[in-house]
Amino acid sequence: MMAVRTIEVRERVLAKNDELAAQVRARLAAARVPAINLMSSPGAGKTTLLERTLTDLAADLSLAVVTGDVQTHNDADRLARHTDRLVQAVVTNGACHLDARQILTALDAIDLASTDLVFIENVGNLVCPASWDLGENTRVVLFSITEGEDKPVKYPKMFQQADTVVLTKLDLLPHVPFRLDQAMACLRRVNPYLDVISTSALTPDGVRPWYDFVRAEARPKSPR
Amino acid sequence: MMAVRTIEVRERVLAKNDELAAQVRARLAAARVPAINLMSSPGAGKTTLLERTLTDLAADLSLAVVTGDVQTHNDADRLARHTDRLVQAVVTNGACHLDARQILTALDAIDLASTDLVFIENVGNLVCPASWDLGENTRVVLFSITEGEDKPVKYPKMFQQADTVVLTKLDLLPHVPFRLDQAMACLRRVNPYLDVISTSALTPDGVRPWYDFVRAEARPKSPR
Repeated sequence: MMAVRTIEVRERVLAKNDELAAQVRARLAAARVPAINLMSSPGAGKTTLLERTLTDLAADLSLAVVTGDVQTHNDADRLARHTDRLVQAVVTNGACHLDARQILTALDAIDLASTDLVFIENVGNLVCPASWDLGENTRVVLFSITEGEDKPVKYPKMFQQADTVVLTKLDLLPHVPFRLDQAMACLRRVNPYLDVISTSALTPDGVRPWYDFVRAEARPKSPR
Repeated sequence: MMAVRTIEVRERVLAKNDELAAQVRARLAAARVPAINLMSSPGAGKTTLLERTLTDLAADLSLAVVTGDVQTHNDADRLARHTDRLVQAVVTNGACHLDARQILTALDAIDLASTDLVFIENVGNLVCPASWDLGENTRVVLFSITEGEDKPVKYPKMFQQADTVVLTKLDLLPHVPFRLDQAMACLRRVNPYLDVISTSALTPDGVRPWYDFVRAEARPKSPR
């Protein structure tokens, strides 16, 4: 009985979230602003990648950021050093994922008319965020090569629902027992349609393919 | 209304879990078998550490393993190669943590009379498993130095409720921008009572302090 009750409540909560995600999506579409939902394990490098991106693409693109954290403002504080714009910090108070209501509230504080792209940095977690639509256009999963080749198979929902995987910390390849071909096979097995981008945020040219991807996502707005 | 309802149901589910965890604890105590709940981010090295432990301590200790995974038996298959005993595999069907009912069921299949210690390998997740008592004696969190120094501050509940932290992948220290003193400060800030064990599961002597810890946990049984 208890189990059935819990699942019913969970489904109602997720259905409500989907409604709110549709509102996010409509608001972003009306403003012609795409949003990328960045997800990964804790410590895979979401904040480091965003720090570099905000700095290096500042001249080309007007980027807004919503960043979620369980208890702290650490990530928001780190990111705020790299942009002139206000970073929207969401503290989930222990919850293991962002939800669409939090994104709707954050959008209220973002001037979409002067924004080319919204980054949403989710809570570090390979399980729960996969179930929560945030109204994003694109789901990106960061996958650090220090985590082992089999993570896509072990956390399949996250990788099935992703559009793009960003492999991170490629500079560590000589020092870890990680086989890139095996990892690619695991990714393809779970989701053959995934785009895969290799990066190393600590080397000068290590994020260039990611920047190409971000520029392509932030299509120029057509005139109103 | 919806939020309040959800929280009430969640609290009832957690209260039921606590009851079942008390049953696990009583059963283990009656058999004088301690249990260690191993938690971490995905890819921090739980399975690798257990693989070595099962092999290297086989002559000294009779170790039982319950391992939880979201969708696969990958970890159970890996561990089964290193022990003569049956590895208890729990597939959570998408759930982000193990619960006490799963441990009670797994214990049914373990001959506790011939067991010195039970390892419980939780789902890779730094958020949700912290809320679920499994009836363990000791909570151990693995913290890979590739994840960055601030993880204890960002996922405080996990580290507040831990007894021991095992730093993993110390062999990568020359190759990552990780400051051990900063990480220790973050750990102490969140939980000043934590024991910290440094390991590198890929070097011959890199897990010796962990073995000392495991041997101390698996106290010899007094005669009946």
